[in-house]
Amino acid sequence: MESDKFNLKGFSLPFTPHGRSSLVEPPPWYYGGEVIQIVFRTRPEQAQRFIPRPLELGPDPGLGIVWFVEWVSVSESNPDLAFINPERSVYPECIVMLQCRFKEEIGYFVPYIWVNNDFTLLRGFIQGFPKKLARIHMTKLSAMNPLVGGRRVGAKVKGICEANAERLVEGSLIFTGQADQSELPKLKFYLLRHYPDLANPSQPLVHELVNSVSELTIADIWRGDAELKFFESAIDEVAALAPVQVLEGFYQSVGLITRGATVIHRYPHQG
Amino acid sequence: MESDKFNLKGFSLPFTPHGRSSLVEPPPWYYGGEVIQIVFRTRPEQAQRFIPRPLELGPDPGLGIVWFVEWVSVSESNPDLAFINPERSVYPECIVMLQCRFKEEIGYFVPYIWVNNDFTLLRGFIQGFPKKLARIHMTKLSAMNPLVGGRRVGAKVKGICEANAERLVEGSLIFTGQADQSELPKLKFYLLRHYPDLANPSQPLVHELVNSVSELTIADIWRGDAELKFFESAIDEVAALAPVQVLEGFYQSVGLITRGATVIHRYPHQG
Amino acid sequence: MESDKFNLKGFSLPFTPHGRSSLVEPPPWYYGGEVIQIVFRTRPEQAQRFIPRPLELGPDPGLGIVWFVEWVSVSESNPDLAFINPERSVYPECIVMLQCRFKEEIGYFVPYIWVNNDFTLLRGFIQGFPKKLARIHMTKLSAMNPLVGGRRVGAKVKGICEANAERLVEGSLIFTGQADQSELPKLKFYLLRHYPDLANPSQPLVHELVNSVSELTIADIWRGDAELKFFESAIDEVAALAPVQVLEGFYQSVGLITRGATVIHRYPHQG
Amino acid sequence: MESDKFNLKGFSLPFTPHGRSSLVEPPPWYYGGEVIQIVFRTRPEQAQRFIPRPLELGPDPGLGIVWFVEWVSVSESNPDLAFINPERSVYPECIVMLQCRFKEEIGYFVPYIWVNNDFTLLRGFIQGFPKKLARIHMTKLSAMNPLVGGRRVGAKVKGICEANAERLVEGSLIFTGQADQSELPKLKFYLLRHYPDLANPSQPLVHELVNSVSELTIADIWRGDAELKFFESAIDEVAALAPVQVLEGFYQSVGLITRGATVIHRYPHQG
Repeated sequence: MESDKFNLKGFSLPFTPHGRSSLVEPPPWYYGGEVIQIVFRTRPEQAQRFIPRPLELGPDPGLGIVWFVEWVSVSESNPDLAFINPERSVYPECIVMLQCRFKEEIGYFVPYIWVNNDFTLLRGFIQGFPKKLARIHMTKLSAMNPLVGGRRVGAKVKGICEANAERLVEGSLIFTGQADQSELPKLKFYLLRHYPDLANPSQPLVHELVNSVSELTIADIWRGDAELKFFESAIDEVAALAPVQVLEGFYQSVGLITRGATVIHRYPHQG
Repeated sequence: MESDKFNLKGFSLPFTPHGRSSLVEPPPWYYGGEVIQIVFRTRPEQAQRFIPRPLELGPDPGLGIVWFVEWVSVSESNPDLAFINPERSVYPECIVMLQCRFKEEIGYFVPYIWVNNDFTLLRGFIQGFPKKLARIHMTKLSAMNPLVGGRRVGAKVKGICEANAERLVEGSLIFTGQADQSELPKLKFYLLRHYPDLANPSQPLVHELVNSVSELTIADIWRGDAELKFFESAIDEVAALAPVQVLEGFYQSVGLITRGATVIHRYPHQG
Repeated sequence: MESDKFNLKGFSLPFTPHGRSSLVEPPPWYYGGEVIQIVFRTRPEQAQRFIPRPLELGPDPGLGIVWFVEWVSVSESNPDLAFINPERSVYPECIVMLQCRFKEEIGYFVPYIWVNNDFTLLRGFIQGFPKKLARIHMTKLSAMNPLVGGRRVGAKVKGICEANAERLVEGSLIFTGQADQSELPKLKFYLLRHYPDLANPSQPLVHELVNSVSELTIADIWRGDAELKFFESAIDEVAALAPVQVLEGFYQSVGLITRGATVIHRYPHQG
Repeated sequence: MESDKFNLKGFSLPFTPHGRSSLVEPPPWYYGGEVIQIVFRTRPEQAQRFIPRPLELGPDPGLGIVWFVEWVSVSESNPDLAFINPERSVYPECIVMLQCRFKEEIGYFVPYIWVNNDFTLLRGFIQGFPKKLARIHMTKLSAMNPLVGGRRVGAKVKGICEANAERLVEGSLIFTGQADQSELPKLKFYLLRHYPDLANPSQPLVHELVNSVSELTIADIWRGDAELKFFESAIDEVAALAPVQVLEGFYQSVGLITRGATVIHRYPHQG
């Protein structure tokens, strides 16, 4: 019978006759950006408290990474989005990652991530990134401005993330030289998909760990002296992950393609 | 065995040791606001195209309602939020509703709804409201400003909703007198819950129609001469629902409690 | 000769053929708003450092007032602005005032004031208010939301002002009872008009103290227990005015008409 | 006598004990940015109506230029601003320029210019740029995102400027090849300084034409097929300058140093 077949179009809400309004387009999604990357160590017992079981602490317990990045991102199904709607394809992001492992596979769990835009907020929620809105400010290098300059030894960049009138994360880097890709930690994301059930608030409809299926390319890497601060907040608990040591900092160009996800664990009693 | 029990706290992403960071708190949720309400008629065949089966057109096919409202909203579990974090409890909203029915029960389906804040965006997504971010501007009446004035015959209010550098909806009202609650359409929401599955993009994890479980109270109602416009957009299809007739307009104070949802239809092949 | 007569229209930049684009319209300007008012005492020697001579400390040295207010404001020349362009007539404001006197006349100098909108920023600059942009959040009371409530004993309101990812000012009030206008400090503004000269940066084109010509009306006054904090900032020096004592707090409806200004002092060497 | 000597510090409002709060720092100011530049022709009689006498139409009457640019800008007195406060040094801008001449000197008058930030708004006002706040969106090219790509034949960029929920200007460019600096119009700004006098609203305190003293450097120039639209607005009159012809479009890296201004004409009766 026809009557219960779904008659609207799109990949996500809102669904419409033509499917043009969906906040999120189907993967694959393509990204390019400039990244401030800071590698730090927090207290392992704190990292542990933010990592959902059965994920475990990684081989370097308490290791974490922060990224500040301004992305330009489009979908394969709508490759001209950056041209037609630049406001929908450019957005800044601040990510906190904690090293962990699932069985023998080392990766990073994301306890916090902030963006400034609706489609990427929901696109993150669908992937298992716990995105919130924030104002994220990053130094823009410019070879045309002699007081700022481009990528070079001595270049100075900072990222600041603020939400709810609270500064949450601040990271900075002073370039000391070029670096090689072999020096960078290898990234792989473990994420938590979760969709609460208002028909039964004690039991989510979706509650599972996934592995993001994505490809990362990196270029033009610089190393530098880094600083990193997490701030106390009435809302977010990020200060519990405050660095006890800043290990290293990088600036790099990044390309990313996200193709999908693989479920690695379903929490019991899921609907 | 302990190892697969979920060890983090919260109602929605992000989950943390203390559960303070969750974007959405558990229901019930309480709202108060001033509403510009405009009742209009669009072409029934257009309304039909935006209403997901098995919902059907209502007894007045093509009847629609637009609300512009500034909410103050808090959860029962965090009743002081409007005091502690005013920026998280005050937000404007623009809603488009289409009359429909499920079996014999008349209600309204929401093809479009815009807000300006992350927690209400995700709170909507969990309920089945297809929220997007927009800038929503509403006239604020003020008895202390003699050129503006308070609620009175002749008072003029307007709502404007803009996203992606496009004006999408504009509604206005010039007060002609007080009105009685019996003149207002009775509201009941039919909503579409949907959570795409990145592990299998062709098959959503959640795809169902729900009935919002909520209570509405209304006070201080004014009637007026209304205008309503939906604008062409490169992204949203709201202009397809353009009014062929504006029936009536109201301004009213509204209280709302949302307690949960009841599933009325699951689309086939859902996970 | 005609050729040097000014041929464009408007009250402020930008000037255009029809004069519709001017950011600021000619006075008088009308305002209405709800105000959180907190009266505090800072160290007199700090207040002194922010008050430009020949203004002197007032009879209660170090006395200061903070306002958080959401205005609806229109000009006499464009009284329907709140209806036609609500986004241009509604804006929040956070003001810091320091008691001072000019000769025998007691008033308040404004070292800091924040808003969120261009026309009021420039309208302030023209008056001598040193406005900056900020995000200002205020509790909205609502009798329709039972967990928030309207104006009543026990009502709780807060104002927060943030700029450059720094929280700058936070004030809160818990209502204890109604109050009478006679309890409120009488307001009169001393302001500093200043227009730098790029043709000679060491010598401003305008540099003078003025007295704002305005009328204030007040209604529905509540008294309460208040708190007030000024925060350290890399940019603003407001923490130097931190309260050593919070004297009293009020919540009130305010009407204001600003008609112009009177020059009371010109600094030497002005062009 | 000491009492009327100005005892506060800064270059512009707000003035404070340490001078750190001033919205604008003293020149020189340094800028770097990527520019979408579109050269168009409007009806000469319309251009004439926006150009203040004694400026006259230039040798190519009706010629205009639009820039969309994202600047990184710092002052000589605070060269690390882009590092310490990235949010105060990065901002987008949309400029409309009309060719004109003063005596035999050809230059451009700026009837409209939009930015998104307070310090540049006021810095513009002090220079004679009639800046307003807007949301300005520009395509970001990215060699790391294969669907977007970097500067190359076929690259597509767009700029959009929106204010008051109205799209005002939209310009786009599809790269056809590299270009030489000799193909670009030579820029020189004629600006209108104006400071209204609230003590006498019919007579401004400052009202004069100036010549901006600045140096422009240009690099990495691309030529392309351009489109340009000005939109009708309830507030701005920019649609009166709508292109009758789009002549050419460029994408280029720009460096700018602004050192000051030279007065070329004072309007009579100025205070």
